[in-house]
Amino acid sequence: MDPGLIQLDQGSGGRAMHELIDTLFVSAFNNPLLAERNDSAVIEIRGERLAMTTDSYVVDPIFFPGGNIGSLAVHGTVNDLSMLGAKPLYITSGFILEEGLACGDLEKVVMSMAQAAREAGVLVVAGDTKVVPRGKADKLFINTSGIGILPPGIDISGRNARPGDQVLINGTIGDHGMAVLCKREGLAFENEIQSDAASLNGLIALMLDAFAGIHVLRDPTRGGVATTLNEIAEHSGVGIRLFEEALPVRGDVLGACELLGLDPLYVANEGKVLAIVPAQGADAVFSAMKSHPLGRAACRIGEVVSNDPGRVFLRTRIGGHRLVDMLRGEQLPRIC
Amino acid sequence: MDPGLIQLDQGSGGRAMHELIDTLFVSAFNNPLLAERNDSAVIEIRGERLAMTTDSYVVDPIFFPGGNIGSLAVHGTVNDLSMLGAKPLYITSGFILEEGLACGDLEKVVMSMAQAAREAGVLVVAGDTKVVPRGKADKLFINTSGIGILPPGIDISGRNARPGDQVLINGTIGDHGMAVLCKREGLAFENEIQSDAASLNGLIALMLDAFAGIHVLRDPTRGGVATTLNEIAEHSGVGIRLFEEALPVRGDVLGACELLGLDPLYVANEGKVLAIVPAQGADAVFSAMKSHPLGRAACRIGEVVSNDPGRVFLRTRIGGHRLVDMLRGEQLPRIC
Repeated sequence: MDPGLIQLDQGSGGRAMHELIDTLFVSAFNNPLLAERNDSAVIEIRGERLAMTTDSYVVDPIFFPGGNIGSLAVHGTVNDLSMLGAKPLYITSGFILEEGLACGDLEKVVMSMAQAAREAGVLVVAGDTKVVPRGKADKLFINTSGIGILPPGIDISGRNARPGDQVLINGTIGDHGMAVLCKREGLAFENEIQSDAASLNGLIALMLDAFAGIHVLRDPTRGGVATTLNEIAEHSGVGIRLFEEALPVRGDVLGACELLGLDPLYVANEGKVLAIVPAQGADAVFSAMKSHPLGRAACRIGEVVSNDPGRVFLRTRIGGHRLVDMLRGEQLPRIC
Repeated sequence: MDPGLIQLDQGSGGRAMHELIDTLFVSAFNNPLLAERNDSAVIEIRGERLAMTTDSYVVDPIFFPGGNIGSLAVHGTVNDLSMLGAKPLYITSGFILEEGLACGDLEKVVMSMAQAAREAGVLVVAGDTKVVPRGKADKLFINTSGIGILPPGIDISGRNARPGDQVLINGTIGDHGMAVLCKREGLAFENEIQSDAASLNGLIALMLDAFAGIHVLRDPTRGGVATTLNEIAEHSGVGIRLFEEALPVRGDVLGACELLGLDPLYVANEGKVLAIVPAQGADAVFSAMKSHPLGRAACRIGEVVSNDPGRVFLRTRIGGHRLVDMLRGEQLPRIC
């Protein structure tokens, strides 16, 4: 492994993080469950398939329009479980607090977690609290881990995309990343950009009811839609073509991205799911998405192709094609 | 809740942390599983009882005699599951890395985790990595969460201690806390004090094979033996009497404690289990402990009594009795 020092971009969700995970974690913890590299692992206990996942949250600032680190920590873990088609049941929460954090802020965060958990129908069953001296952490970090139950017959994985599949998303892209970044940098637009952070388990249950044969579900968090689709293209050995004119981006998010020189395709989302669906099920899944409050702005944004395996291309408005690579470097640190 | 600021002692494992947990977490996440307040929660999935737990590790320094933050993170979570009598199966690991951490240090830590997991027979199935800018964390923090399976018929809980039960421990107390503290403060004794950090699932399986009716198992980590026994006394509504002459403390640990004005009863352990066992099973459990490499120095250190419910007393060498309260204030920050 690299003899050097850890760099910020090794936590970005992009290329550098994937290299760190491959060279160190997957090889050290060598086992087929981890090597699957989905958002959650599928484990089996006495014949019952469960999904298990973990995420640490270090978002800065801890309060942002549309949520805070606490609600985000619940949504994120609920979503990671949901991306396998699992029904999330139980989560744990581990807090690392910086000495001097306002107790009122901690209370607000915990209350938001509790509300998010209630709304998503999961129970927080175990917790842990550490306090470190001032300057040894930044306000608070939260880890949430979770388990859920995987219904029989569901087989959703980043390895399952097949040529001919359609690529759907449940709404606009880049909202979370730009909400956090604008708040952090004190950028004021006419309307405050709101994070899309939300628990997607209800939406996904509806989509699976409509068509249980969905191939891939993945939430485009760190690294955004571009990086997530690159992962899927790599793991499935397929090409993915996006249609530029179909990509849904809010006007204010696009404006902020242009101002800051960011591409919304690489900006994090926390309430979005990319669904890759065989053509025969795509209409049913799309209708199910549209019928749910979190899927009203659903779009068909691309298709899976057999050429250029491992790569993602954007078909531009004028009919050209441009390579959409995985995120390189750190676009937005501490976005989740 | 307190309108003030978070204090170091709210993460100490002692009184202040218990108040924080009671007033905030247990009430916000209001559910009977969390309210049980054991090291792990017992959850039920399709009739199967599982144990689930989480812990974040912020130990400073990250390398200490007898282990490092990585091996500790595995041992700690394996032990929390084992303390319910569960067989630990799967764990997750969430890393928060400070930009600039030496990659070689991370590699050593991860390799130690992998080895500890192999030795304990658990699989690391999911992970997460975040990187925060320099000065926003201290080298690295690790969260490990885990699940295990609870054999039928086992009912171990901090609420189960009964008058007449014996209090056993598998070896010397205070080793981990003093190893970390001496390393951190650069205190050199003739021999370096070694942490006792170890996975106890093998030992505990043996103890349960010998006598399945063990009432309480608890690992005396933050806050030490004194705080852990106070928790048990409170939750079970019983008194606990310790015998001073029976408390096993290594000479070097005692020396370091005396030098620093610390009481080994309050110093953290990471490879110790307190077992509270009905008298009829105590000999069998004690023999099983003695037969295991991690229990060779096992001792009977006390008994459960009906008077003074919720309190722990020490019967001193000269026959007096002194109240052993829960830890107040922060004795040793960042010990795990």
